[in-house]
Amino acid sequence: MSEQHIPYKMYLNENEIPSAWYNLRADMPIKPAPLLNPGTKQPMTVDELSGVFCRELAEQELDNDTRFIPIPAEIRDFYRMYRPSPLVRAYFLEEKLGTPAHIYYKFEGNNTSGSHKLNSAVAQAYYAKKQGLRGVTTETGAGQWGTALSMACSFFGLDCKVYMVKVSYEQKPFRREVMRTYGASVTPSPSMDTAIGRKINAEHPGTTGSLGCAISEAVETAVGTPGYRYVLGSVLNQVLLHQSVIGLETKAVLDKYGVKADIVIGCAGGGSNLGGLIAPFMGEKLRGENDYRIIAVEPASCPSFTRGRYAYDFADTGMVCPLAKMYTLGADFIPAPNHAGGLRYHGMSPVLSELYHEGLMEAVSVKQTDVFEAAELFARVEGILPAPESSHAIRVAIDEALKCKETGEAKNIVFGLTGTGYFDMLAYEKFHDGKMTDYVPTDEELAVYAAKLPQID
Amino acid sequence: MSEQHIPYKMYLNENEIPSAWYNLRADMPIKPAPLLNPGTKQPMTVDELSGVFCRELAEQELDNDTRFIPIPAEIRDFYRMYRPSPLVRAYFLEEKLGTPAHIYYKFEGNNTSGSHKLNSAVAQAYYAKKQGLRGVTTETGAGQWGTALSMACSFFGLDCKVYMVKVSYEQKPFRREVMRTYGASVTPSPSMDTAIGRKINAEHPGTTGSLGCAISEAVETAVGTPGYRYVLGSVLNQVLLHQSVIGLETKAVLDKYGVKADIVIGCAGGGSNLGGLIAPFMGEKLRGENDYRIIAVEPASCPSFTRGRYAYDFADTGMVCPLAKMYTLGADFIPAPNHAGGLRYHGMSPVLSELYHEGLMEAVSVKQTDVFEAAELFARVEGILPAPESSHAIRVAIDEALKCKETGEAKNIVFGLTGTGYFDMLAYEKFHDGKMTDYVPTDEELAVYAAKLPQID
Repeated sequence: MSEQHIPYKMYLNENEIPSAWYNLRADMPIKPAPLLNPGTKQPMTVDELSGVFCRELAEQELDNDTRFIPIPAEIRDFYRMYRPSPLVRAYFLEEKLGTPAHIYYKFEGNNTSGSHKLNSAVAQAYYAKKQGLRGVTTETGAGQWGTALSMACSFFGLDCKVYMVKVSYEQKPFRREVMRTYGASVTPSPSMDTAIGRKINAEHPGTTGSLGCAISEAVETAVGTPGYRYVLGSVLNQVLLHQSVIGLETKAVLDKYGVKADIVIGCAGGGSNLGGLIAPFMGEKLRGENDYRIIAVEPASCPSFTRGRYAYDFADTGMVCPLAKMYTLGADFIPAPNHAGGLRYHGMSPVLSELYHEGLMEAVSVKQTDVFEAAELFARVEGILPAPESSHAIRVAIDEALKCKETGEAKNIVFGLTGTGYFDMLAYEKFHDGKMTDYVPTDEELAVYAAKLPQID
Repeated sequence: MSEQHIPYKMYLNENEIPSAWYNLRADMPIKPAPLLNPGTKQPMTVDELSGVFCRELAEQELDNDTRFIPIPAEIRDFYRMYRPSPLVRAYFLEEKLGTPAHIYYKFEGNNTSGSHKLNSAVAQAYYAKKQGLRGVTTETGAGQWGTALSMACSFFGLDCKVYMVKVSYEQKPFRREVMRTYGASVTPSPSMDTAIGRKINAEHPGTTGSLGCAISEAVETAVGTPGYRYVLGSVLNQVLLHQSVIGLETKAVLDKYGVKADIVIGCAGGGSNLGGLIAPFMGEKLRGENDYRIIAVEPASCPSFTRGRYAYDFADTGMVCPLAKMYTLGADFIPAPNHAGGLRYHGMSPVLSELYHEGLMEAVSVKQTDVFEAAELFARVEGILPAPESSHAIRVAIDEALKCKETGEAKNIVFGLTGTGYFDMLAYEKFHDGKMTDYVPTDEELAVYAAKLPQID
């Protein structure tokens, strides 16, 4: 198919919203390592996982075989509220950079949660409701996942209790109000409501919190409250499965216009966006049908791919969750306050970790001020104020486009613009005032946490 | 054409973005009363207006005859960044209300300015650049207009100086940061930078400001700075002209799907959204081709249509602007702090004022807490967090839909959802905490200001 005229915004029709999620694991010759029971160190079973997650999600978590899992009608209806999301041709950015590259971004920010997180939130809330549960607990970093889950729970009539990493809770007071608008309760983490929260507060007075700690609190509350389960917005296989809707739409609309991506770029915290965006591209790569450069972008302040170890580790600070084999900085690693709150997780999706380990994708870490420079440039020419998390991908997309300018290559660069930065203006203010710093952990710091990794295998 | 299956989001294609604005005045048998020179009380000429506005905009301001004015290619390119905007069928809201009515809303919030204001901002910045100006000044209430103008000026490389009503400046600190991201300078109004600002601060110590005052400061600065002109985000004929893109798209996509609107509803501050949304519908009504109920919704705290006088008045507190004949509460009227900052203007578009005066449209005023109740309901079922301004229209759309429920009528209700409320979370917080009040001015208060209206005609 030859390349057609490309509009600024490439949309699928509503009836082209994918009818099934794509389970990339089915195409992986080497599967991600299994989750282990933190007590017995044996692979978790569906029955064991069902104490924490609802049953259908536990099944999805362990399903390495089914390539396509149908999306229930109720979820597809909800998707119609805000999907298909546009794939935007960044004509203005290309012109500004003077690059021969063609830049495309899949924009997931046109919904009130402000990000792609809603894609999995609605799925998890739906299955919880279907199982007859009363409510769910979760953690949130930047607040996008908490907002998304609040929206989904409100829609299906479920209670929603959110532990919000303290640094984000303080930096983003209005995020809490959005969640309240959707009827959720929001608690800064570490809190004094849980045993693990009290322990961490005692051991690290004044801590600004971490996702690992907030996860522990949310799990403790879910397990201790009848009719509740825990849900998670990233890292897990099930989340990447739900987020495959991003990649499937991206691939479908590129195919519709006869465009073959050369490079696919996504920001990576726990891996929810990246895993979803790249799924169909990586699938073709694994099946030998097509080749793509796939690049994960992470903050230099929390560099799990580029400076972490590939090892079994706890998913949470409290060590109540299953152990996962992943690139990790160590479950105790609490990154310095960093405005890309959604990219502060110590570990990385086991699926992506295995793919990276096999050399099927690249990873780059970028400094915060470079990210904000890219964010501001992007805002000015493309008219969208990007979230700091998303701006990591913008930074590397711009860098790749500038390389094309040097070589004269007209590569097709596709990146995920996961969300908007309306609740990140304190960070933009610091950047404007020249007060933003670039924290990068030293090797010595990282070694301290790496030494504490559990010794498994 | 029979009614087709309606998707959740009805989009036009990019090549269906209108190629010309529609000038409703050309179809008005009785034209809006002319702007008067504040000194001579004679109708303003293009030459006189050109001292304040750039020339092509001055011409548009006084053009009562040309039905369609072509949209320059540069502006259409910019529109492609965020237009066509979706017309959404509110299936979830209909279901929640149990109404047989069909509810549609034109959503103008999917851009970083967060509202429809960008439609006119880009036009005004374009003409200023074309004329070779250095920069523009303006005022902003809720901050949406200022943000939109900042984006447009950044795009065309113009300086942008914004006077922001003090109450909004304080309630929305992050709005200022968004404008700064786009390189604008933002000053709380009344300031000490201008003669009128100093006068108002002296006469009303501690005042929270008003649009009328901020306009005076912006005009004073524009007139006193070489290479600068003043631009305004509402009230003016030229603004309604640019905003006709909203109505044209709405009408075109309804026609495409074979839907005939019965009721068209818009919130009204200065009238920019309402005038743009209703333009083609009102045009058909004026030409006798179709009938529509058209409803303006204003806050009970600033009820220019429903409790104001139809008279010549100053557009600004400082009386430096031309006099306009409009529904007005008096140029000195400073509404109590009200979170729908964009609907705090004392007057109303002369075009809309004339149409209302002739009985061609209705007006309703609504209380703030009723508005937020509608906003929260809407956010929960439709997944969009609406701006307080926009929520005035939601309130009345819901009320009309509930009337249909009583009568069993399946009316087609179309309303303008002008923007998102991400920067209004302080107001939502007050609402959630039960601390929101419903200020309604007394007849005595209004009489004080009405008595000060200039006596013309």
